[in-house]
Amino acid sequence: MSFADEANSDVPTLPGTHSGIPTYLLEKARKEKETVFETRTKPINERQRLPVVPQGIERDDFLKALAELKGQLGAEHVEVNDKPLRDGWYMEHPNTHDMMTILDEEELVASAVVYPSNTEEVQEIVRWANKYRIPIFPISMGRNLGYGGAAPRVRGSVTIDLGKRMNKILDINPEDYTCLVEPGVSFYALYEAIQEKGYDHMWIDSPDLGGGSVLGNTIDRGVGYTPYGDHWACHSGLEVVLPTGEAIRTGMGALPGNNTWQSFPYGFGPYSDGIFSQSNYGIVTKMGMTLMPNPGGYESFLYTFQKEEDLAPLMEIIRPLRISNILENVAQVRHVTQAIAARGLPRATFFSSSGPIPNNIIHAAAAKTPVGDHTWAYYGMSYGPAHIRAHKLALVDSEFLKIPGAKKIDTSTLPPDEYFWARDRVAAGVPDIHELRWVNWTPNGAHIAFSPVSPIRGTDATALFALGKAAHDKYGIDFFPAFCVGLREMHLIVEIVFDRDDVKARKAALDCLRDLVDEAAELGYGEYRTHLVLMDQVAKTYSWNDGAIMKFNEKLKDALDPNGILAPGRCGIWPKRYRGRGWEMTRDSGMGSEGNGVAAD
Amino acid sequence: MSFADEANSDVPTLPGTHSGIPTYLLEKARKEKETVFETRTKPINERQRLPVVPQGIERDDFLKALAELKGQLGAEHVEVNDKPLRDGWYMEHPNTHDMMTILDEEELVASAVVYPSNTEEVQEIVRWANKYRIPIFPISMGRNLGYGGAAPRVRGSVTIDLGKRMNKILDINPEDYTCLVEPGVSFYALYEAIQEKGYDHMWIDSPDLGGGSVLGNTIDRGVGYTPYGDHWACHSGLEVVLPTGEAIRTGMGALPGNNTWQSFPYGFGPYSDGIFSQSNYGIVTKMGMTLMPNPGGYESFLYTFQKEEDLAPLMEIIRPLRISNILENVAQVRHVTQAIAARGLPRATFFSSSGPIPNNIIHAAAAKTPVGDHTWAYYGMSYGPAHIRAHKLALVDSEFLKIPGAKKIDTSTLPPDEYFWARDRVAAGVPDIHELRWVNWTPNGAHIAFSPVSPIRGTDATALFALGKAAHDKYGIDFFPAFCVGLREMHLIVEIVFDRDDVKARKAALDCLRDLVDEAAELGYGEYRTHLVLMDQVAKTYSWNDGAIMKFNEKLKDALDPNGILAPGRCGIWPKRYRGRGWEMTRDSGMGSEGNGVAAD
Repeated sequence: MSFADEANSDVPTLPGTHSGIPTYLLEKARKEKETVFETRTKPINERQRLPVVPQGIERDDFLKALAELKGQLGAEHVEVNDKPLRDGWYMEHPNTHDMMTILDEEELVASAVVYPSNTEEVQEIVRWANKYRIPIFPISMGRNLGYGGAAPRVRGSVTIDLGKRMNKILDINPEDYTCLVEPGVSFYALYEAIQEKGYDHMWIDSPDLGGGSVLGNTIDRGVGYTPYGDHWACHSGLEVVLPTGEAIRTGMGALPGNNTWQSFPYGFGPYSDGIFSQSNYGIVTKMGMTLMPNPGGYESFLYTFQKEEDLAPLMEIIRPLRISNILENVAQVRHVTQAIAARGLPRATFFSSSGPIPNNIIHAAAAKTPVGDHTWAYYGMSYGPAHIRAHKLALVDSEFLKIPGAKKIDTSTLPPDEYFWARDRVAAGVPDIHELRWVNWTPNGAHIAFSPVSPIRGTDATALFALGKAAHDKYGIDFFPAFCVGLREMHLIVEIVFDRDDVKARKAALDCLRDLVDEAAELGYGEYRTHLVLMDQVAKTYSWNDGAIMKFNEKLKDALDPNGILAPGRCGIWPKRYRGRGWEMTRDSGMGSEGNGVAAD
Repeated sequence: MSFADEANSDVPTLPGTHSGIPTYLLEKARKEKETVFETRTKPINERQRLPVVPQGIERDDFLKALAELKGQLGAEHVEVNDKPLRDGWYMEHPNTHDMMTILDEEELVASAVVYPSNTEEVQEIVRWANKYRIPIFPISMGRNLGYGGAAPRVRGSVTIDLGKRMNKILDINPEDYTCLVEPGVSFYALYEAIQEKGYDHMWIDSPDLGGGSVLGNTIDRGVGYTPYGDHWACHSGLEVVLPTGEAIRTGMGALPGNNTWQSFPYGFGPYSDGIFSQSNYGIVTKMGMTLMPNPGGYESFLYTFQKEEDLAPLMEIIRPLRISNILENVAQVRHVTQAIAARGLPRATFFSSSGPIPNNIIHAAAAKTPVGDHTWAYYGMSYGPAHIRAHKLALVDSEFLKIPGAKKIDTSTLPPDEYFWARDRVAAGVPDIHELRWVNWTPNGAHIAFSPVSPIRGTDATALFALGKAAHDKYGIDFFPAFCVGLREMHLIVEIVFDRDDVKARKAALDCLRDLVDEAAELGYGEYRTHLVLMDQVAKTYSWNDGAIMKFNEKLKDALDPNGILAPGRCGIWPKRYRGRGWEMTRDSGMGSEGNGVAAD
């Protein structure tokens, strides 16, 4: 599940890299690699096409331009992407491409990766890109797996790996409960820093996996599982390098000498932060984040529901409880198939045929687990002192048990390695990595997400479940639905796990996703976020008034990025010189990743 | 106090107008007019300069253009501003100017007012304005008193009075706890509609005064006093007419057939709502708003503190309680001078000399009130069932009473007309108008606000209090400080009440404000919102990196509004053809409201 997938560090980082993951977790990750990543230890593919050069520039000119950049940043901070993408079980250069690619692995790759150390160097890179009209693609830590990982949208872009060197926690303010971070600060790193300072009055909020960038996750509008789960709503203040090289600070950051940049988000005049989320209008180099006050106690809980059709009445029960904050965090209502997969064993352990795994096999497997057989599981947490929690938990209990067959699981009986405890940690603001285990469901496991938004309603849940099930059945794919209930809406997160070395499996996953996006849009459901290769298609579903919002987005893009150098195509927004030249990727247009050229002027 | 002043309907609306205020309140307002507005019953001023014509167009061409617009909208929906601004105790055309003007009353006036009935007509007006390059200034209901009322920033603009005819509540959703409103829906109207439907499970959030526009207040980033007080954070979805005439819908509104426009704010791609707040980039014609769930009980409380120097330790106590949501709503820490003024009696009742009213007189007056003598009063509310409130109230009590001399007021002893009960109503989501009584402090009472943002800290509160006190003393003005504590920050709201018919009093108020803005900025404090005539000055204080944020704002303005017709100068943002032509109003540039011309091309 990757509700907030910048953090989806499905591939544990090796020592010596810049993950910000503490050593004990790297140890853990190494120990887990046999079980989780055994299927990746195959010999590497032969490299077919590297190195690449950005379209519209000759190879020699590109190398000359890179030499110039090396002169500015230092030669060691500019690397051409000319090494194998895979080396042994792990990648040499994880931030050159998508480690979970849904296309041919060398389709969406960087021509080079650069490592700025500060905002001024980011500005230099942007000016350099304008001078040579080279597409640049900024990443924080490259952990946006399930949504494109570190891959650039335009093949041959120069990737700006911000996180490698810009990984400082610039401030933690224990009075205001805020912090200021650079792009390379992971949820783990922030958590560790707060623990080290002994600030036990403050919590962070982490998405499912803690290895990603706090900043990157937030500007992609990722979500976590404490009451501070809406990361975008919880940030305060950005520093942004614009596509023409100027640096701005938003909110109170624009007032010299202020002491409120991280405590009051809005400032004076237009509140411009939003247009730097899910966009290609600027490179965010610093971000303020609020921290949650320790609630004075917490207690997670688990209910199971027996039948698929329990989903609708459950949603009707959840909605008012969630809006009233009796259910206080992003609720997860998970299907049993994913629960079984999250135990980390390959699908072949249970079922050796092709096609979706039969229900009876899943239920038989579930019956043998400590949680017991069920179809849906609700993972929640209650916050506050014991007597305050008791009030809320009693309400939840009386409501949930109205559904016949509903059970409250006695979580004290669950073994330490049970998935429930991973959810417990995450909902208590403790970064975790257990979630990634379901990637092991297939050989060479990778995943890609379908994530439509709907109201919290039985009818919507049922419609989305039916739509998802039909498409998965059509393509012979196991269906992993999890409903994540925000406040007034829910995100259905469907992770398709596929064998990334199996061309047919990749195609089935992508075809299934393309169906899902279009069919959902016909019913009025749109994605809150999507994978690089689906961005054009998803953007097109937001088509009210003859595509007015995209025309507006393009107007902003052209004004802010007249040379069209910054992350062309991200979220479906193409700069003028790319538009109408075949760069879009849709079901009809095919790959489109090389386009039909770029306007010379 | 006008923390959220679009709602500052200081002038009760007469029957037959389009306020959306229910009849019983109009009755109440009429009854109150003798006490509140007795000073306004003077003979009207002679009109000096009306009608005006927008600069850059000849009178005949302007009238011809208006005739064309009449043909489109209907003659009765286009009115030239050629009638007296005042007639009897009340204004004939309240939405042609600022009823609480700090400048000469006919300085910032409309040339005409137009009344569209729907989004398409707003688009027609915008296209018309582009054709003739006529500045247009949209208002929702014109109640932004204290910040400029209904006045346009550029003299002679054509005011688009959206609220008169676009005043429908388009949806109230009792399942999702949301609504969709047009610009003319007041807090009163929304409240009444919810009551009429019997939806007692949902609350609205109202600012100090309930007569203003929900939409207008929200896009000016106004604030109310329930846990849903941050109106901007609580909205979901906009429909916006761009300065070139296109209509867009933000968030999920861009997805045809969606059912999540009001329940999920972000949509897909850049989240653009923010740039339509405190700006001149678009005309918001519809807005979604979330509604608060009835908390199942509430209980307001009042503590008083004896000494001015209690402010600093009180803030240190408030901060962690507020961030932890033990204090659950926007706290008001008010100075006793304003508490006395809020009783509605003129200052002359207490003190007949000029210069600030002495402390001993204020304290003597306070001693005679049911609340008793004090310097600071904290108005708060606790939400939830009784046993949940008891937990929070006990924590608050033990903390607040650490301050020597602090008293918890037994509110059951307070008479029904006491100001406390107005705060009680507002914090329970019931619109009110009691707040306006302090306008009666001076003859022809008007007010203008200084509203800097700071952390919730004793040192900051003390610094701002000292700064404010010194400036008020310098100009001989009574000082009405109220600290409104958001979550991690507070807004000091200082209302300067002045006699709008007294040129010297107006000048003193404005000079005092200009001092306050500059002196606060030197200490790192910036305004969250400001009056029309201070917008240029305040915008200039947000000057980090050589004014980078304003250069960015101007770049967006020029891209979105190439003819520079929409609300030129709002929030200090001038379109290209106005820049460098003397339109700014600062201490040095003087009035500037007629500028030195507008570029012809």
